[in-house]
Amino acid sequence: MPGVQTCETLVRRVQGGHDCPARDLLAVEEPLEIRVVVGDGATVAPRTVAVTMRTPGHDAELAVGFLLAEGVLRDDAPPRAVQVEPAPVGVLGAAGSVTVHLAGDGPTLAPLARHSYTSSACGVCGRVSLDALLAAAARPLPAGAPPIDAALVHALPAALRRAQPVFADTGGLHAAALFDAAGRLLALREDVGRHNAVDKVVGARLLAGALPAHDGVLLVSGRASFELVQKAVAAGIPVLAAVGAPSSLAVELAAAAGMTLLGFVRDGRFNVYADADRVRAAGAAAAAPALEEVMA
Amino acid sequence: MPGVQTCETLVRRVQGGHDCPARDLLAVEEPLEIRVVVGDGATVAPRTVAVTMRTPGHDAELAVGFLLAEGVLRDDAPPRAVQVEPAPVGVLGAAGSVTVHLAGDGPTLAPLARHSYTSSACGVCGRVSLDALLAAAARPLPAGAPPIDAALVHALPAALRRAQPVFADTGGLHAAALFDAAGRLLALREDVGRHNAVDKVVGARLLAGALPAHDGVLLVSGRASFELVQKAVAAGIPVLAAVGAPSSLAVELAAAAGMTLLGFVRDGRFNVYADADRVRAAGAAAAAPALEEVMA
Repeated sequence: MPGVQTCETLVRRVQGGHDCPARDLLAVEEPLEIRVVVGDGATVAPRTVAVTMRTPGHDAELAVGFLLAEGVLRDDAPPRAVQVEPAPVGVLGAAGSVTVHLAGDGPTLAPLARHSYTSSACGVCGRVSLDALLAAAARPLPAGAPPIDAALVHALPAALRRAQPVFADTGGLHAAALFDAAGRLLALREDVGRHNAVDKVVGARLLAGALPAHDGVLLVSGRASFELVQKAVAAGIPVLAAVGAPSSLAVELAAAAGMTLLGFVRDGRFNVYADADRVRAAGAAAAAPALEEVMA
Repeated sequence: MPGVQTCETLVRRVQGGHDCPARDLLAVEEPLEIRVVVGDGATVAPRTVAVTMRTPGHDAELAVGFLLAEGVLRDDAPPRAVQVEPAPVGVLGAAGSVTVHLAGDGPTLAPLARHSYTSSACGVCGRVSLDALLAAAARPLPAGAPPIDAALVHALPAALRRAQPVFADTGGLHAAALFDAAGRLLALREDVGRHNAVDKVVGARLLAGALPAHDGVLLVSGRASFELVQKAVAAGIPVLAAVGAPSSLAVELAAAAGMTLLGFVRDGRFNVYADADRVRAAGAAAAAPALEEVMA
């Protein structure tokens, strides 16, 4: 396991009339520099394309997933090589780095030229115009994705919690998990940033040669923003399920891209916000017991 | 009220054996372009410094708060003028804009030169080096900030919920609220992005000439990241209280800046992660009834 995902700290715990020192586990947040080298010349200098605040671990996957969502990598073409450089120990805010080597005749950095100055907290930040982004992100998913059963959707949050070890300790991590159409867990990643968790899942599948994920269901632990829909579309994932609420633009983009978007997937219920026909509701009497069983 | 913060949509609601159409309220997410003009020449072209995904409303405050956190504005010097241009209606992903006019002899865009290509979801994204950021963000808060009573901290979440109208409807918005040292609500803003909610609160106070907020307590509805600590420090706020967990770097930066950082502020408890001496715990018997009353 690369990286340290939690660290212990001393706190004062105040509850009711009590006030005492205690130990507490924190989710680690550290900067990671994402660098790109195009072509195979040894003299080509790496170019820094992003610095993101993330929880250490699966850094190569994070960088690769990020570059896929940005349009620098294609979902059918993994990078030539990925080098990971950990952060120096003991320096506040010191950044590790990942250098992704791209073939010179394949993907280019042209999509990143959309960026200029940056903003905070979303993947479209720094883009002077959203037009190119929307055009790219709204690339339709292939028609004919398999239907998905309501009972399977109901079962996803429990499967996520069972497989999410760090959150239980810190309460401070988002999770993203990719399931196949039969509900089998393919990959799960945690991070202080939900976008990073999704980048790590997608990057893992790209590095495994398993994209596009046309029979995948992506579950995220929080809310569904525009950015998460965009990342799922870039990976060819036809179903995005969020434990929390979707935003207006997430719904609009999902509808434009032909993605099935589910929200409030918890406590035995969910809402379908886009491409509703793909969800096969629990049928009549025959299906009901199975559903009960799933939620027990 | 500028901007539309929620919109209605039709969903399929699946719960137990039921599956029926329903109406649902979404939190609106739309891009906003932040532009800056330095100097007073009518011929100076605005320069786009960021595009952020935000919930419409209080856009001038958002832009001003963002520029303060970025070091372009100072907390004692509001901008010369702010122009707001709404997004065109009916275009998916169309951006509104805010143009902030800065005095030519005062703040400059130099701090933004730290940025290069952008990443997603955090305020330090795109910075090639974090050194300058850390140096700036760790500017110590003035010593001698007033102590804060545990009973007051316990009462903050309920005060936030009472004053947060949109979240109850959509479940999709983060909130940030600034209180004074006596627990009086000074400003509350909601947004799909928690960083935006903080920018709006801080921008509102800057435009009101009420910064630095050296007796302020900032409450945020979610987790406390590095970025939120940085924004609070830039506004001179000595206490940051989060309903959720802090990250490791949030704790480290708060400690370096002399900020009191509280986490898990909910259900009658909280943890103190940095600068613990400022928090005055509930005393003996005399304080207990008041505390009970607050949490009732």
